[in-house]
Amino acid sequence: MSGALEFSPSRAHPLSRVPRFDLQTDVIIIGFGAAGACAAIEAARAGSQVTLFEVAAGSGGTSALSGGEIYLGGGGGTRIQQAAGFTDETEDLFKYLVMAGGPNCDVTKVRAYAEDSLAHFHWLTDQGVKYKSSYVPEKIVEPITDDCLIWSGSEEAWPFVDAARPAPRGHCPQFVGMGGGRYLMDVLTLRVSESGVDVRYNSRALCLIQDESGRVHGVVVRSDGELRYARARSGVVLCTGGFVMNRNMVKRHAPLLLRSNRPIGTVDDGSGIRMGMSVGGAAINMSEGFVTIPWYPPESLVQGIFIDERGQRFINEDCYHGRVSQYIFQQPGDRVWLLVDRVAYQPPAFQEFARIEIGAAGETWEDVERDLGLPPRALTSTVEIYNCHAAQGADPLLHKARKWLRPLDQPPFVALDCRVDHCVYSSFTLGGLDTLPTGQVLNEDRDLIPGLYAAGRAACGLPRWGAGYSSGMSLADCTFFGRRAGRQAARREP
Amino acid sequence: MSGALEFSPSRAHPLSRVPRFDLQTDVIIIGFGAAGACAAIEAARAGSQVTLFEVAAGSGGTSALSGGEIYLGGGGGTRIQQAAGFTDETEDLFKYLVMAGGPNCDVTKVRAYAEDSLAHFHWLTDQGVKYKSSYVPEKIVEPITDDCLIWSGSEEAWPFVDAARPAPRGHCPQFVGMGGGRYLMDVLTLRVSESGVDVRYNSRALCLIQDESGRVHGVVVRSDGELRYARARSGVVLCTGGFVMNRNMVKRHAPLLLRSNRPIGTVDDGSGIRMGMSVGGAAINMSEGFVTIPWYPPESLVQGIFIDERGQRFINEDCYHGRVSQYIFQQPGDRVWLLVDRVAYQPPAFQEFARIEIGAAGETWEDVERDLGLPPRALTSTVEIYNCHAAQGADPLLHKARKWLRPLDQPPFVALDCRVDHCVYSSFTLGGLDTLPTGQVLNEDRDLIPGLYAAGRAACGLPRWGAGYSSGMSLADCTFFGRRAGRQAARREP
Repeated sequence: MSGALEFSPSRAHPLSRVPRFDLQTDVIIIGFGAAGACAAIEAARAGSQVTLFEVAAGSGGTSALSGGEIYLGGGGGTRIQQAAGFTDETEDLFKYLVMAGGPNCDVTKVRAYAEDSLAHFHWLTDQGVKYKSSYVPEKIVEPITDDCLIWSGSEEAWPFVDAARPAPRGHCPQFVGMGGGRYLMDVLTLRVSESGVDVRYNSRALCLIQDESGRVHGVVVRSDGELRYARARSGVVLCTGGFVMNRNMVKRHAPLLLRSNRPIGTVDDGSGIRMGMSVGGAAINMSEGFVTIPWYPPESLVQGIFIDERGQRFINEDCYHGRVSQYIFQQPGDRVWLLVDRVAYQPPAFQEFARIEIGAAGETWEDVERDLGLPPRALTSTVEIYNCHAAQGADPLLHKARKWLRPLDQPPFVALDCRVDHCVYSSFTLGGLDTLPTGQVLNEDRDLIPGLYAAGRAACGLPRWGAGYSSGMSLADCTFFGRRAGRQAARREP
Repeated sequence: MSGALEFSPSRAHPLSRVPRFDLQTDVIIIGFGAAGACAAIEAARAGSQVTLFEVAAGSGGTSALSGGEIYLGGGGGTRIQQAAGFTDETEDLFKYLVMAGGPNCDVTKVRAYAEDSLAHFHWLTDQGVKYKSSYVPEKIVEPITDDCLIWSGSEEAWPFVDAARPAPRGHCPQFVGMGGGRYLMDVLTLRVSESGVDVRYNSRALCLIQDESGRVHGVVVRSDGELRYARARSGVVLCTGGFVMNRNMVKRHAPLLLRSNRPIGTVDDGSGIRMGMSVGGAAINMSEGFVTIPWYPPESLVQGIFIDERGQRFINEDCYHGRVSQYIFQQPGDRVWLLVDRVAYQPPAFQEFARIEIGAAGETWEDVERDLGLPPRALTSTVEIYNCHAAQGADPLLHKARKWLRPLDQPPFVALDCRVDHCVYSSFTLGGLDTLPTGQVLNEDRDLIPGLYAAGRAACGLPRWGAGYSSGMSLADCTFFGRRAGRQAARREP
């Protein structure tokens, strides 16, 4: 342990000061979540000697906390999509992902993913990940059954529906309950073992080793309490996750996310991002994050309207819950309500988990407005306009789809309290190192940093806009670009 | 020239590969705007040998494009504030600046500035910057007369007015017309010359020189077309400005600013930020920027209300024009209007410059709503609620101060078109290198990078939130923390 304190992820160790190499290999991978697992499998299969360092005592990382859902499609559709009656063209997947990528979308990565997403589905099943051929048409968060295909984004909602033909693309593994991410990682972990990867648990990467020309040669690691200098002949792949658990980094880079009281992460201390920055890697998109509250199901609640503390609407409520939540976070103040009438109201399925409570109820909307302490007319005029348009089957202000539109005119009326400072909003970060689709890490001029690769949330990949996130996009990115980073790192550069 | 292409600000040059030093000095300053000038003056006065490299043929940088206004106060008030009848306590300046700094405010820097702002005013006058003892009470952008003191922020507007006792703090130099920034730079340039600083114009810093331990030793520079290796025994101070003219960087880090069609900058290519990043410096707050359209004066327009393309209000209109503009940029869509009636309407003073035109006019608000193509009730219900509350002297939704409130009920009615894609919105960046109040550049763990300093918009200083910016804050930061960086760099570190 002694001496470890002098190392920092934010300061690279000079190659000339490495006293010895305790370990030499071709490819070093840091972090055993989905990205690290896929990178390790592919690098080993390409013939490289691979060492994987994981800080915990087992595999999984934050990927194992998830539902294991992966955003897949294109090429006419996976067999699951097709069996459910959907064709899914590559161009529609491409257009949706470009739009979902937001103002800073990496079109090159989206193109690579859209073209090869179907092949990636086959790769996943080849690894042994099981998918049941079944489809859940309702708007849900993830199945508690072992069903597979769900609508996991805003495909059917404005403005996405105008840009790309919608298809459900969330593929959940065949696993009963909400722990599909652990199952996915169990499958991948077994493949890693079989690939002959040297896995070192309880091993924290302390910093990169760099020569004076800027090339990365390995890492300093504390492994089972011992300081070790590890050399990677070909490359180091950072698969360390995001930085949501490093609250100083969140405060500095993504202060909006501090409003979320449930960061989703295991380690996620930004150490990989910091290591990349220490050698001149560009961290981009650092202010963006995913936030969400599972305010539906049941989907009847989508008939309701969200208002902020001024009584104003701000989003078409038929969007993915994460997009709605992103807009909630951008409204002024902490107070937000979902207004529903007797017909639309059912208790939210995640009411207890999310701490969504009834903020006010009454026989008239005036009662609700008054009980919420809103200024006169703030709420009632919003409901009036909405009802007037909804009666005509239209939502010209926010473009909620016709199927969800009906006047909220059946008393009693209810305001579900979705206060940011009270309810449970989950979050993780979407900023990270800028990389090529090969996983090669770039500096601010987009020149390569030789010997350094990144994948998963240590990198900035497909998901990079909270308002465009869809469930399964991060695991899609981790697994797909993790594989590519592993393959690229296995090629010895000149 | 040959060979220069192999250098990049994003890649440091190893000390061991420096063939010779063409120039050796104590302190190297890069960039001759306000930050560079003040750093040079103070480093030279502290006894250091100082070389200043400026890429242009003369001093000024982006500081010279400004009005030269500096945000000053505290300590009971400057003599100008006092003569105008304002006392300005340090704590009020502090509280205002903390709030204006937004969610990622650097309280340590704000504290330093609030405590020493009055002394900084005296330093500026000691340099020869002249201020007339006069005060303009109206809401203006900057005086075209030689008057001094103006309200240059949101001090009197909600929510700032609830946090700190307001005082006007924008101090404009005694200069007739809008070119006060050039005058300010002329004064500072003369002081730099008198300080014995070695100024090299036509000199572009290509990259930093760093040893393997991470310490910065100098810069590679192309000076009058010749490649030069320049050594700084004590430190390099980056005063290169922001990155608003580097559209790739803007796209990557602050895509919202791409909506502005008038970036304010000279060089501002982010080269200093990139140089800092190349040695592990943390660039923070990179998504933030200042945007504005001078929609007032005349101040009667503040009686109007802004609506977005949904007909919704979104800001108390008595805020500083930059805060209003920041909210305009955050609304969905490109269409924004300022609604006024006959009593409030006067042609905007900057109508031609800003391309603010009349979007619709009519004898009723229904006419205006229809002519703008808004859905029925979208605009009219907003005006109804506003008028109803304004008649009672209140704005419970957005808290515009009482003095601006009156029902907009005197026809004809006018919608001034403030479309983002048509009008002229100016912008500059507010993200940069993380530094201590001494100007010392920090890595992502907030450890020092030895030998490296930054000030002005290459650093992330006082102004770091578009919604909190006030005129004069950037020059306050450049001059004040430029001075500190110069003094600190002049101290030889162990």
